[in-house]
Amino acid sequence: MSIDDALLEIKKEPFEDIGYAKVDLHRKIRQGAAEVIYGAGKTPEQMIGIVSTMLKNGQDHILITRLSSEAADMISQVHPLHYHKDARVGIIGEMPKPTGKGKIVVATGGTSDIPVAEEAALTAEIHANEVVRLYDVGVAGLHRLLNHMDEIMSASVIIAIAGMEGALASVIGGLADCPVIAVPTSVGYGASFGGVSALLSMLNSCASGVSVVNIDNGFGAGYLAGMMNHM
Amino acid sequence: MSIDDALLEIKKEPFEDIGYAKVDLHRKIRQGAAEVIYGAGKTPEQMIGIVSTMLKNGQDHILITRLSSEAADMISQVHPLHYHKDARVGIIGEMPKPTGKGKIVVATGGTSDIPVAEEAALTAEIHANEVVRLYDVGVAGLHRLLNHMDEIMSASVIIAIAGMEGALASVIGGLADCPVIAVPTSVGYGASFGGVSALLSMLNSCASGVSVVNIDNGFGAGYLAGMMNHM
Amino acid sequence: MSIDDALLEIKKEPFEDIGYAKVDLHRKIRQGAAEVIYGAGKTPEQMIGIVSTMLKNGQDHILITRLSSEAADMISQVHPLHYHKDARVGIIGEMPKPTGKGKIVVATGGTSDIPVAEEAALTAEIHANEVVRLYDVGVAGLHRLLNHMDEIMSASVIIAIAGMEGALASVIGGLADCPVIAVPTSVGYGASFGGVSALLSMLNSCASGVSVVNIDNGFGAGYLAGMMNHM
Amino acid sequence: MSIDDALLEIKKEPFEDIGYAKVDLHRKIRQGAAEVIYGAGKTPEQMIGIVSTMLKNGQDHILITRLSSEAADMISQVHPLHYHKDARVGIIGEMPKPTGKGKIVVATGGTSDIPVAEEAALTAEIHANEVVRLYDVGVAGLHRLLNHMDEIMSASVIIAIAGMEGALASVIGGLADCPVIAVPTSVGYGASFGGVSALLSMLNSCASGVSVVNIDNGFGAGYLAGMMNHM
Amino acid sequence: MSIDDALLEIKKEPFEDIGYAKVDLHRKIRQGAAEVIYGAGKTPEQMIGIVSTMLKNGQDHILITRLSSEAADMISQVHPLHYHKDARVGIIGEMPKPTGKGKIVVATGGTSDIPVAEEAALTAEIHANEVVRLYDVGVAGLHRLLNHMDEIMSASVIIAIAGMEGALASVIGGLADCPVIAVPTSVGYGASFGGVSALLSMLNSCASGVSVVNIDNGFGAGYLAGMMNHM
Amino acid sequence: MSIDDALLEIKKEPFEDIGYAKVDLHRKIRQGAAEVIYGAGKTPEQMIGIVSTMLKNGQDHILITRLSSEAADMISQVHPLHYHKDARVGIIGEMPKPTGKGKIVVATGGTSDIPVAEEAALTAEIHANEVVRLYDVGVAGLHRLLNHMDEIMSASVIIAIAGMEGALASVIGGLADCPVIAVPTSVGYGASFGGVSALLSMLNSCASGVSVVNIDNGFGAGYLAGMMNHM
Amino acid sequence: MSIDDALLEIKKEPFEDIGYAKVDLHRKIRQGAAEVIYGAGKTPEQMIGIVSTMLKNGQDHILITRLSSEAADMISQVHPLHYHKDARVGIIGEMPKPTGKGKIVVATGGTSDIPVAEEAALTAEIHANEVVRLYDVGVAGLHRLLNHMDEIMSASVIIAIAGMEGALASVIGGLADCPVIAVPTSVGYGASFGGVSALLSMLNSCASGVSVVNIDNGFGAGYLAGMMNHM
Amino acid sequence: MSIDDALLEIKKEPFEDIGYAKVDLHRKIRQGAAEVIYGAGKTPEQMIGIVSTMLKNGQDHILITRLSSEAADMISQVHPLHYHKDARVGIIGEMPKPTGKGKIVVATGGTSDIPVAEEAALTAEIHANEVVRLYDVGVAGLHRLLNHMDEIMSASVIIAIAGMEGALASVIGGLADCPVIAVPTSVGYGASFGGVSALLSMLNSCASGVSVVNIDNGFGAGYLAGMMNHM
Repeated sequence: MSIDDALLEIKKEPFEDIGYAKVDLHRKIRQGAAEVIYGAGKTPEQMIGIVSTMLKNGQDHILITRLSSEAADMISQVHPLHYHKDARVGIIGEMPKPTGKGKIVVATGGTSDIPVAEEAALTAEIHANEVVRLYDVGVAGLHRLLNHMDEIMSASVIIAIAGMEGALASVIGGLADCPVIAVPTSVGYGASFGGVSALLSMLNSCASGVSVVNIDNGFGAGYLAGMMNHM
Repeated sequence: MSIDDALLEIKKEPFEDIGYAKVDLHRKIRQGAAEVIYGAGKTPEQMIGIVSTMLKNGQDHILITRLSSEAADMISQVHPLHYHKDARVGIIGEMPKPTGKGKIVVATGGTSDIPVAEEAALTAEIHANEVVRLYDVGVAGLHRLLNHMDEIMSASVIIAIAGMEGALASVIGGLADCPVIAVPTSVGYGASFGGVSALLSMLNSCASGVSVVNIDNGFGAGYLAGMMNHM
Repeated sequence: MSIDDALLEIKKEPFEDIGYAKVDLHRKIRQGAAEVIYGAGKTPEQMIGIVSTMLKNGQDHILITRLSSEAADMISQVHPLHYHKDARVGIIGEMPKPTGKGKIVVATGGTSDIPVAEEAALTAEIHANEVVRLYDVGVAGLHRLLNHMDEIMSASVIIAIAGMEGALASVIGGLADCPVIAVPTSVGYGASFGGVSALLSMLNSCASGVSVVNIDNGFGAGYLAGMMNHM
Repeated sequence: MSIDDALLEIKKEPFEDIGYAKVDLHRKIRQGAAEVIYGAGKTPEQMIGIVSTMLKNGQDHILITRLSSEAADMISQVHPLHYHKDARVGIIGEMPKPTGKGKIVVATGGTSDIPVAEEAALTAEIHANEVVRLYDVGVAGLHRLLNHMDEIMSASVIIAIAGMEGALASVIGGLADCPVIAVPTSVGYGASFGGVSALLSMLNSCASGVSVVNIDNGFGAGYLAGMMNHM
Repeated sequence: MSIDDALLEIKKEPFEDIGYAKVDLHRKIRQGAAEVIYGAGKTPEQMIGIVSTMLKNGQDHILITRLSSEAADMISQVHPLHYHKDARVGIIGEMPKPTGKGKIVVATGGTSDIPVAEEAALTAEIHANEVVRLYDVGVAGLHRLLNHMDEIMSASVIIAIAGMEGALASVIGGLADCPVIAVPTSVGYGASFGGVSALLSMLNSCASGVSVVNIDNGFGAGYLAGMMNHM
Repeated sequence: MSIDDALLEIKKEPFEDIGYAKVDLHRKIRQGAAEVIYGAGKTPEQMIGIVSTMLKNGQDHILITRLSSEAADMISQVHPLHYHKDARVGIIGEMPKPTGKGKIVVATGGTSDIPVAEEAALTAEIHANEVVRLYDVGVAGLHRLLNHMDEIMSASVIIAIAGMEGALASVIGGLADCPVIAVPTSVGYGASFGGVSALLSMLNSCASGVSVVNIDNGFGAGYLAGMMNHM
Repeated sequence: MSIDDALLEIKKEPFEDIGYAKVDLHRKIRQGAAEVIYGAGKTPEQMIGIVSTMLKNGQDHILITRLSSEAADMISQVHPLHYHKDARVGIIGEMPKPTGKGKIVVATGGTSDIPVAEEAALTAEIHANEVVRLYDVGVAGLHRLLNHMDEIMSASVIIAIAGMEGALASVIGGLADCPVIAVPTSVGYGASFGGVSALLSMLNSCASGVSVVNIDNGFGAGYLAGMMNHM
Repeated sequence: MSIDDALLEIKKEPFEDIGYAKVDLHRKIRQGAAEVIYGAGKTPEQMIGIVSTMLKNGQDHILITRLSSEAADMISQVHPLHYHKDARVGIIGEMPKPTGKGKIVVATGGTSDIPVAEEAALTAEIHANEVVRLYDVGVAGLHRLLNHMDEIMSASVIIAIAGMEGALASVIGGLADCPVIAVPTSVGYGASFGGVSALLSMLNSCASGVSVVNIDNGFGAGYLAGMMNHM
């Protein structure tokens, strides 16, 4: 592709300006996947408007993250929304068949990390990936993790989700041969500092093949894992 | 693989205990790639001992990171070491032919980020990847980046390396369709806080498909990029 | 002006002491513009008293920032207040005709930054400036920003407002020839740390001509932009 | 200007790729002013190469900031460099005649802030501005500042430079009618945290018309002040 | 006093153990002043019990700080409490006549700092000091402060209370000849970080004679000022 | 024990997978003590499920920490729960007879630290330890602490619990001959930063024999103290 | 004093402008005491110039703090300087007779705090105060402190100097009846964070009558203690 | 013991005042163990003086930590010192026979943690404990740790030393039945923040029985482990 073509392509990328938002409409074409609305900080009215614009332009798979149940109720009165309460995720459209090359393992340190894990898992699934859930396998009880060595060794990508000390990413990173995406969570108290402790732990992981996304960013991990699983 | 086999495998993973280090010897078998020695905090004598143990066990590709030129001099009197001064990287063994599925782009915001970039590039190359270097394409002069749209659009994986405000990762993440590994660098002054500003900026990236490694961790990015490029 | 005159002038600057506040009354004279009340931490009763003192002294343009809708209701029962809910701004008096030398562009990274942007825009407008609003042009979708190159290239001053990674200021700063006032917002989650990430990113901007105000300080940016636009 | 023209213009902005740097060559055309090299983190050889590229392309005013005296010595053996030791600034080319609309006041809290102040002053001067220096007028001795009320009241722009508690910006901001650019410095000890205390103080300034640049960023303040002084 | 006497004295200091608290009863004897109860984190029942123990032992001046109006209501049903809503302070017993050597000036930067100031002023008053209140004299409007030079020059001790940039302490410290106790407040937003910015500013004050107490610690400042005023 | 046996043992450690949790069932066997459920972040339904699984498997002593009174109400409708409101602790099963070698002293700096102290004390008691409670013995009134020198000198382990400046641990550590477990609490305001000040103070203790657990981690201190008391 | 007189007085306060510094000359008149030069960040040449200006104007007691031995050597070749190596303090002029109302106790937690303590003690002594030194009386060995109860109980003001956990200020504050000035020091390692831990501990002191100055600010404490001792 | 006896005992604890230090002489009596000198921040002359005072009073086992090799050389010219270069520890007197109830395991994550580990091990040994060293068993290569399960399962106390992500403490804490003392080290770079990342990770450990000491505090861990091993 020449530079001129590239610039032209950027300029021509379709979006629709509805005042409070410039709605992207290209993702379907470029990435064959769902459009995403980050729900935090948007009013239900704004989200309804954005969804309407997307549907009008032919986008039939839409993922809304960080969606409160109140806002979900309001949106579902206008659009056919499926709301996952734990994950605080709303989905418009059917879940696609998995097309990736392998399985994505989503593992959590504890029960309290499940909401973030579900955001990751649903994001991966709507981008056509098969997901295996391993919840509550934190390193303080290593036997729980070691009992799932086969899932870990055969994964295409692993998403390791943990709060508190965040050691799960390092231990899994040392055991597995595939990329590990670490997601710190804000689970914890005191010196967990809303996930900072887990974040730092994961950034400092001595295991190779580990990278990190923002605290509680289940979406980002699920999206990236899906991208890798389709390489 | 059964649980018993998995545990057995872990237990049997070969390493040699030389007192100050337990030298891993399995990587060649498991990952078909170079063993890595993290040079910081190790004496030259310790590194010579570790290298000797590796060579004795048949590992013929060794990468030493964070290696001072003084230590490199001492090691090269014992072992055939090729030292890359900018990257502070020492390599034993020939660079392999690229076997990955595409090209890894290593981009930096400025000239001062080159040492970290070279650590990333050399790490990727010794793990059999082709690397394209795009240096000094920071977002304050967007034309420099846009002139390389073709490399960006055709990359398999992109490593975005920047200090100061670290915006390079977000802009590249928005332009590219492939995974972006962001590496904050300690380049900067004042409120850059030794790379923390760039780190936070990258963790908060609004672009999908971006994950982050530790400040100045060129090795980690290069290793992970190579892993993805061989998926 | 001699030193004696200067000191005399400072001493003589008119204010009225109403116990809980010393109400400035000179701004109209010195700066030909609206008096400002920072509403946070003041009771509705206190604000009503301050407004009464200002009106009594002939100040007919008053801007109240960080005003809750409850307080706005109480004030508007006593004084003719126009309340902008999004911006949490109350205004007494008519918007003046623009008298500045050019246009002030107010750009935001996302939809959630609009409240801060509206505080900036209204502040600039009540100080007699023409404002162009460019909302939701974050750098993760560069095409949305590049489609507005003409507004950016022809601006007198640009206010760049963004949370999360705050990269908008650097990219605009690199594209534009005019001063850019960066406003970090507390929009975001996790490692955005209530706007600190965006703040640091903006302070470290590699683009020349960028300066920064406090997190969510739309008023400060709007006021300063107006001052520059009248130089 | 149409979008196509804008994109074309960005793409065509001239730079020369010399491997370790992509040297911008457009500033003379677009801004009628000096090119700037940020010296920190660049080797003398790299800086000589960049200067050579600039001179070859007709840029005859070059400012190098954060330049050590050792590097200055090496550069001056190749190019005609005037080195300002206090400011750690090197200049190639003659200082231009002032063409701005007024005077830029550069004020410091103490003697130790002078290096940053000189970087700001020289940057403003090479961009064709008249500079008035007010050094050691910190707020703990208010009489020293009040004795210079006439310079403050008649300034076009004021750069307020201070470490420690950084109160100078607020006091000047309250006295003056023009924009104030606050520069925190790393001068201080203990809880000054390398300039963070002054930075926070300045960001929280209650005075209107104050904006802030990075710690010790004399260049940024001088450049922005010059830009404002030519509006 | 011999060591034995001192130890004996410490051991014999009277307190009464009521399970959830060990109530000090010596202050009246040793310091001729009111006992103090820090109300935060104590239940109304606990506070009633502590007050009862104090009254029973002859302590007739009691100051309760950080007292919610709900708790005040409950206590006042049992004991004769005078509640100051702004300061969140409850007082049992009459205000004593001032016996200190001079006046204590309590100055605030803004209206929002008044609650902390009132806590300081009431604390000083119940310890028999005369207090002069100077509210809303922040440094962004220096004329308001300079109009009160006579109170400042004739004070025995000054308590300077400010949030945001906290510059008031330095400016007053430079003007006055007496000790200045600086109280940072949590007033502000964004980079004020709940008072940390003001705290750091005050700790770094270049003015001699300034010391600092905890954020919002009006009580500590009022108590210490009273102690100084009785030296 | 051979390595094979050890690995086998880890693998065989009994747990039951109930989806949202993998419930450990081995503690009774290995440690002869209560199972613990960390209540924060778990729904009442999840806790009921975990308790049912434990009871079904013969675990008859269960401790639930960080349990809200609402959740306690719901659980107690299904299982026989004894709820300690202050400590926010729920206990199933009878308190065992003390079997440790000595007494565990639980000391607090103030009244507000009692909830954390009770969590520690109850945890120690359910693990069969005798506990002595010394509440409100902070160092600002040293006589209160010195009056309990005999309890301190005869303790087996001491748990020192304090917020604010956290000096209690150092003073007790200097007086006692036994291990001291320091627990910082989030009691305080301003620069106590939710317990960080106390945490840092305790980590920096100059007294030998002091170690620290997380802020407000009464459970961790009580459990560890019990472990030491049974060595 | 009227406002006009006050302003006039401020304006007329004598200083001499020597370019890099505006030398205050009024302190002798207003405070009957030594002028002070903060040596850090000033060149020996600058300090010689400032001293010359002071001497020329009749100031015969000068204190230079944070003075390196190299700079002291250079100054003493021009002016009669007495250099205290431990305290890094230079003094010109004879120590005056004590004229304060009592004794100032300077206490340190350990041996490593002595340099800061000596800066405080010398500052107090040159301002005509009697000083009692109590070094190495940290709270981890309470007997060392309790053996000096008589000095503590009879002090006019106490300066409590400590690094690490900084508990000394609270314990002394609880024992003494006089104001306590707490000075955190940068002594320590790890989580002492260059004095931050001690600073926070002191700011959070539960003892009444304690205020704090900047980390390592022996001068500030000595100056303020002297001011109090002369009230 | 009565209160009077206790106080008397504290008062009578022997120390010798040598001006710059108050040398404790009681430890031999009270704790049957070595006296300890913290070498950092003390001059060699001061340390020689303290050692002389101790020897003169019959203390024949002395441990000096944080001792530079230069200072060790100077001391060993006066006193019979055995210097351990790696640990930066000097020892006077013979190592005693182990008298504890079991073995103390000292485990490190990597080779670079060995200096801290040796400080811990030597401290434990001079307090009469048997030590087992397990170096370089970090969690990123779990097989290295699992190969030493027998030492871990049979330990009396375990000291887990690690920098970077500090996960070692949690994993060992989950495997072992004995108390685990976690020591974060300053080993690492970037977001390890000089050991803060490891510190936070360890404080947040989900494993029961883990407590933490200061960063790099090998001495503190070794001393406490020895104390536990003699309970």
